[in-house]
Amino acid sequence: MTDPLRIGIAGLGTVGAGVLRILQGHGDLIAARAGRRIEVMAVTARDRSRDRGVPLDAYAWEEDAVALAKRGDIDVFAELMGGHEGAAKDATEAALAGGRDVVTANKAMLAHHGHALALMAEEAGRVIRFEAAVAGGIPVIKALTEGLAGNEMTRVMGVMNGTCNYILTRMESAGLPYVEVFEEARQLGYLEADPRLDVDGIDAGHKLSLLASIAFGTQVDFGHVELEGIGAVTIEDIRRAADMGFKIKLLGVAQMTGRGLEQRMQPCLVPATSPLGQLQGGTNMVVLEGDSVGQIVLRGAGAGAGPTASAVLSDLVDIARGNRLPTFGQPASTLRQARPAKAAVPAPYYLRLELFDKPGALAKVARVLGDSGISIDRMRQYGHEESTAPVLIVTHKTTRIALDEAIAGFAETGVIMGQPVAIRIEQV
Amino acid sequence: MTDPLRIGIAGLGTVGAGVLRILQGHGDLIAARAGRRIEVMAVTARDRSRDRGVPLDAYAWEEDAVALAKRGDIDVFAELMGGHEGAAKDATEAALAGGRDVVTANKAMLAHHGHALALMAEEAGRVIRFEAAVAGGIPVIKALTEGLAGNEMTRVMGVMNGTCNYILTRMESAGLPYVEVFEEARQLGYLEADPRLDVDGIDAGHKLSLLASIAFGTQVDFGHVELEGIGAVTIEDIRRAADMGFKIKLLGVAQMTGRGLEQRMQPCLVPATSPLGQLQGGTNMVVLEGDSVGQIVLRGAGAGAGPTASAVLSDLVDIARGNRLPTFGQPASTLRQARPAKAAVPAPYYLRLELFDKPGALAKVARVLGDSGISIDRMRQYGHEESTAPVLIVTHKTTRIALDEAIAGFAETGVIMGQPVAIRIEQV
Repeated sequence: MTDPLRIGIAGLGTVGAGVLRILQGHGDLIAARAGRRIEVMAVTARDRSRDRGVPLDAYAWEEDAVALAKRGDIDVFAELMGGHEGAAKDATEAALAGGRDVVTANKAMLAHHGHALALMAEEAGRVIRFEAAVAGGIPVIKALTEGLAGNEMTRVMGVMNGTCNYILTRMESAGLPYVEVFEEARQLGYLEADPRLDVDGIDAGHKLSLLASIAFGTQVDFGHVELEGIGAVTIEDIRRAADMGFKIKLLGVAQMTGRGLEQRMQPCLVPATSPLGQLQGGTNMVVLEGDSVGQIVLRGAGAGAGPTASAVLSDLVDIARGNRLPTFGQPASTLRQARPAKAAVPAPYYLRLELFDKPGALAKVARVLGDSGISIDRMRQYGHEESTAPVLIVTHKTTRIALDEAIAGFAETGVIMGQPVAIRIEQV
Repeated sequence: MTDPLRIGIAGLGTVGAGVLRILQGHGDLIAARAGRRIEVMAVTARDRSRDRGVPLDAYAWEEDAVALAKRGDIDVFAELMGGHEGAAKDATEAALAGGRDVVTANKAMLAHHGHALALMAEEAGRVIRFEAAVAGGIPVIKALTEGLAGNEMTRVMGVMNGTCNYILTRMESAGLPYVEVFEEARQLGYLEADPRLDVDGIDAGHKLSLLASIAFGTQVDFGHVELEGIGAVTIEDIRRAADMGFKIKLLGVAQMTGRGLEQRMQPCLVPATSPLGQLQGGTNMVVLEGDSVGQIVLRGAGAGAGPTASAVLSDLVDIARGNRLPTFGQPASTLRQARPAKAAVPAPYYLRLELFDKPGALAKVARVLGDSGISIDRMRQYGHEESTAPVLIVTHKTTRIALDEAIAGFAETGVIMGQPVAIRIEQV
C-alpha cells in the first residue's frame, strides 16, 4: 500500500463533520477500496469550541482556511465552507497555487468562478472535484463526466433543490398556500439562511449551470440561466394541473439548440406518472439524456450530512486511486463559450384563465390563440358560481414568444379577468 | 495530446457494431473528453460478410478472437462476443496474459470466472472493466465502485432483465397469461436464444452476483444466487397483488446479513407507488443502499445497441484517461469468500389461498399462521360462486422457514384447496 492521501478540511458544518465521521468509521474499508489510507491532517472552522459530535483531537487546527490550504503536509484541500466569494475562493486558489488538489461542495463558487478555477487548476496540474456540489449523494457528476462520456448529450434536467420540492409537494398534500408552507419549511430548518437561494431557484440554477458545462463542453455560464422561483405557484394551479394529469416541479433544463445553449430553472408541469412527477418531498432527481444511452434517471437524497459526505468521499477516493480528470470533463481551455439561447425550445403550455361568463367568450379566447399560431390540445371549463369561470387549456407545442403574444391578445378581448397563468409543460 | 488508445473488438453483434458507430460518429468529442483518440485497430466476428451497417474497411480483420487479443498493436481488448466458456474466455485470458486491458459486456463469463480473471488481471497489472455487463446503459458499476466508495453498502437490488419486466407488465396491461406473452416476446426478438437465461432469472442473477461482489467486498459467487424465474407467475396473482397495492417484479436482492451474504433473484412484490413498482416494460432499475448515502435509484435502458455501447465507451474513456481500478473495486486478493446465507432476512409475505366454503375455515388458517409465529397485517376474502373462495393475506415480517412450516400446516386443515401461493414482499 502506498503513502496515505493527506487532506485538510475547511468547514466543519454538516458536511465537514459528516466527512470526518465516515473517515473515522470506515478507514479500513476506504483504504481497501482506494488502495491507500485517507488521513486528515488538519481542519479549520469558524468556531473551534463547538461540539460537532466527532473528535477533532487527532487533527491540527488552523485558524483560517488559507493557512490550511497552504500547509505543506496536505495533498488535498477539502473546501466545505460555502459562499462564493471570500475565504472559500481565496483558500481554493491558494490550494491550487500551492499544488494541492481541491474537493469542494461549493456550487455557488463554481457557478461563478468555475471556469477560471478550472483553468488555474489545469495550469497547476491539479484537479478540482465537486460531486457534492450537485444533487447531494447522487453520483451525477461522475455519471455525466465519466459514465456517459461516449454520448453527445441532448438534454439534462433535474429537480435539484429538495426544499422547493418539499414545499410544492407539501402544498399539494396538505392543501396549504405557499406562504404557510414556506414558513413551515423555515421552522423545520429546511431553508438556507438566505431563503431566496432556495425558493428563487438560485441554488438549483448554480447546479444546472455546472451540469450544462459538462454536458455540452461549454464554459460555466450561470449568468444566463433563466431563473424563476416558486413563490408565484398557487395551490389552485397545483390542483388544476393535477386534474389534467400533471405535477408542478421546480425543474432545471439545459439543452443545446440550433440557436445556442438554453438553461432554464423554473416551475414546470411534468406528467404525474413520470419519474419526475412522482418525486415527493426533499428527494432530488436528475435526468440525463444522450444520443446513445437514451434517458438515464438518477434519484436520491440531495442534502444532509450522510449523502453529501458520501459524495465528498467519492471524490477523495478517486484522487487516492489516481483517477484524475479535467474539472468539467475536458480541458478547460477547450470549453467553448456558449451562445445563450432564450426560449428556443418549443413546448406545450398549461394556461389558466378566469373567463367572464359572456356568450362567445371561449370562442374569443380560441381565436386569439389561433391568431398566434397556437393550437389547443385539451381544454376544460369548470362550473362556477361567480361571474367568472376557470378555464384550463393545454396547448400543443408552441414558443414562449407566440404564447406571450397570445396573452397580450387576451387582454384586448375583454372576456378575461386578471392575468392568465402560463406554465411550461416539459416533455419528459 | 498523447498517443491514441488502440483497441481490438471481438464480436460485431448489436453491441460491437454500436461501439463502432459511436467511435466513428463521435471521434473528436471522445478525444476531447478522453484527452486522446480511441482508435480501432482490428476486429473479429463469426461472419465477415454480414452487413452490420457500419464500414469495417479501416480495421484489420482477424479470423479468431484469440489472435486478435494477442495482436501487438492493441492496448485494449474489447470482448463483446458473449458466452461464458470458449472463445470469449480464451481470448480474455490471452489478452491479459499479453498485457492488454480488457473491456467486456460478458456478465456470464464474469459471473462464472470473474474472480479468477480479476486475479489474473491484477497479476499482469491490467484492468478488466465491465460497465456494459450490468443494466445496459445505466452507469451502475461506476456508481457503486466509485460514486459510493465511501459507504458500507447495506443492500443492492434491481430489476435487471428487461425481458422479464416486459413480460410481467404486459401480462398485467393486456390481461394475458404468461405463455401467451412469452410467445409474443419471442416473436418480438426480446428473448435470448436460450430463453431460460431470461425467464429463469439466470441472466439477471449473473448481474446480481457482480454487484454483490463490489458492494460487499466478496468474491463473485453466482453459484449461491437463489434463482427463481417468472414462469410460475399467474395473471391472477398479478391482479390480486395490484388489489393490495403491489406489483410483481423479478427482483434481485443482495444483502449482507449476520449469517452471511444473501443473494436472491426471484419474483417479489413491491409497493405499486415505489420507483421499482412503477417500472414499466423493458427498462432496468438498480437500487443501491449505503450507510451514508441512503438510497440511490438508477433507471435506464438495460439493453439495446446504443445504451450498451454507451457503457462500453465509458470503460474505454476511463482507460484512455488513465483511470484504473481493481475489477471489483478492491484488489482481488483482498476479496473475502462470502459465507452464503439463505432466507436470512425476514420479510412480509403475500399469500393466496383457495379456501373451502366451510364454517370456521378462516379461523383454522389464522390459527396455523399463529402457531408458526406469523401475524397477519391485512387479509381479504373475495366473493365467490364456486365452492372455494380466494383469500389474500399480507403477513407481517416473518422468515421463509416459518412460512414453509405454516404452508405445511395448511395442508392438514382440510380447508384449503391446492397449493397456496407465497410471494415475498421486498421492503423498498
